[in-house]
Amino acid sequence: MPSTETILTGDRPTGPLHLGHYAGSLANRVRLQHEHHQTILIADLQALTDNAGRAADVQRHVREVVLDYLAVGIDPRVTTIALQSAMPELAELTVLYLNLVTVARLERNPTVKTEIELRGFARDIPAGFLAYPVSQAADITGARATLVPVGDDQVPMIEQTNEIVRRLAHIAGRPVLAECRALLSNTPRLPGIDGRKASKSLGNAIALSASPDEIRDAVRSMFTDPAHLRAADPGRVEGNVVFAHLRAFDPDQAAVAELETHYRRGGLGDATVKRRLEDILQALLAPIRERREAAARNLASVDEIVRGGTARARVVAADVLDDVRQAFALER
Amino acid sequence: MPSTETILTGDRPTGPLHLGHYAGSLANRVRLQHEHHQTILIADLQALTDNAGRAADVQRHVREVVLDYLAVGIDPRVTTIALQSAMPELAELTVLYLNLVTVARLERNPTVKTEIELRGFARDIPAGFLAYPVSQAADITGARATLVPVGDDQVPMIEQTNEIVRRLAHIAGRPVLAECRALLSNTPRLPGIDGRKASKSLGNAIALSASPDEIRDAVRSMFTDPAHLRAADPGRVEGNVVFAHLRAFDPDQAAVAELETHYRRGGLGDATVKRRLEDILQALLAPIRERREAAARNLASVDEIVRGGTARARVVAADVLDDVRQAFALER
Repeated sequence: MPSTETILTGDRPTGPLHLGHYAGSLANRVRLQHEHHQTILIADLQALTDNAGRAADVQRHVREVVLDYLAVGIDPRVTTIALQSAMPELAELTVLYLNLVTVARLERNPTVKTEIELRGFARDIPAGFLAYPVSQAADITGARATLVPVGDDQVPMIEQTNEIVRRLAHIAGRPVLAECRALLSNTPRLPGIDGRKASKSLGNAIALSASPDEIRDAVRSMFTDPAHLRAADPGRVEGNVVFAHLRAFDPDQAAVAELETHYRRGGLGDATVKRRLEDILQALLAPIRERREAAARNLASVDEIVRGGTARARVVAADVLDDVRQAFALER
Repeated sequence: MPSTETILTGDRPTGPLHLGHYAGSLANRVRLQHEHHQTILIADLQALTDNAGRAADVQRHVREVVLDYLAVGIDPRVTTIALQSAMPELAELTVLYLNLVTVARLERNPTVKTEIELRGFARDIPAGFLAYPVSQAADITGARATLVPVGDDQVPMIEQTNEIVRRLAHIAGRPVLAECRALLSNTPRLPGIDGRKASKSLGNAIALSASPDEIRDAVRSMFTDPAHLRAADPGRVEGNVVFAHLRAFDPDQAAVAELETHYRRGGLGDATVKRRLEDILQALLAPIRERREAAARNLASVDEIVRGGTARARVVAADVLDDVRQAFALER
């Protein structure tokens, strides 16, 4: 890995960010922002691809997501926070890239296939949804990103982007843009409090902005081992949401390993483990909540952060668009 | 029809415009430009949807098409001539509209289906090609067009545009853009000189810029009635390319009707009819060729016409984009 990479990450503004985002990506971003050039794209146009009827909700969440970023320690002086819908260059790149990929290829994209099933679209897939790997290729290349942090399930998106980059080189007869690499996260996905996949829409995750009461209630209702009826019984830690959270957030992982052994053997009650987790989450989220509240007291400054970040990101994207237009023999 | 409509027409810059374009649309545009607001969009991005590998050709043809416009009498003081690829607003509208139409609906579009077959794409349809009715909806609404001159085969495109307009009103909860109407041409399609469909790619049409020799050779090689071997024989005028051209361009249509009767009865040779047609086409195309050559002597002025027209068109498109962004709850 070169000493400095250009990283693109982002989120769809469809709800408050939660502990799953923190464990899976936000904590990494806070660390990576000091080592590399990092842009976080708030993908509000991508959010519309399956939320066209809830556009106002999407926009309402944009500012909330920025507050979440600032709350966890994203520093807008080193990380560029940009708003997708305010970057016409990305729409232009998307429209040009649509010519470089076939419908069949998009339909074969495993991520798209899975999400089409998840959303129950069947044949009624919005065209924008089918096209979203192309839009993502525009986002990634439009930031000249060399490294894209993703989960396993998003690797096909990176491949799709690189296919477009190669196809562009093919029609131009020379390299135009650089390919990017996936930065795979080795953090296991944090389950929702009910043991299902954590999801904004299921409301089964602990928001970064959760109040102390909400944190307490969420921990108390966490799915553990339904067969572990008495403290004296042996319990399972696999699929146990409390232990998943302890493994993700407990600063003392040696203690967690001991607790797991104890729980398996029997003699450790859910209430005890939950109390420990609640303390850890309250301690983790209290400063995040405080920074969030502080930032929320100056919304003009929050908006200015997005405006400034978007303006910086547009300079790069306009330069990329110049290169791509030239590959299509269009006037620069 | 209100006294003044806003008309959007256009062409893909994939080759020189020919007599088929003149009979089918250019002559109408010259007439309509004095009665209505008219924008002609040079659809170079749309041309890329099935010519991504021939992008340089597309750009080379842009100026040629403008010269053809000026040659036939399009007056840039009353008609706005705009270049699609220089209007980022249209890309933004396209990306937003993609969320308002399903993949299945695009695949059912009869015009798209036919053209997919014509081009032999099968499953390898470029995504941009499938999306082109959406891009056309962006072009039409982006000009606030109320009237779109089309052939029968393009009516589904108008329906697709109006569906998007209605879907936009649905998500906004109020009307956002006006629907448009098709202005159907009652001019029969002019066949190519070989009797097949006239096509830039088949090279079977007489270009507006054809030289006198090219016109002569084209008329001489025109498909007539293969069974009409001797002048004395009865001949067929149906499917006879020479008569199709006479019906389209002969200023004396009563004489054409008499010639048809004579030809059917027998006693009228192909050479005679072809001489008449050649005279008519030479007379029609000579002033067009002269105006074209005059315009081509000042290419800076041609480019300025496109720049100025595009700038005017962008003012309208930006205003439309504002309205559409508002419907999606995006910042104006």
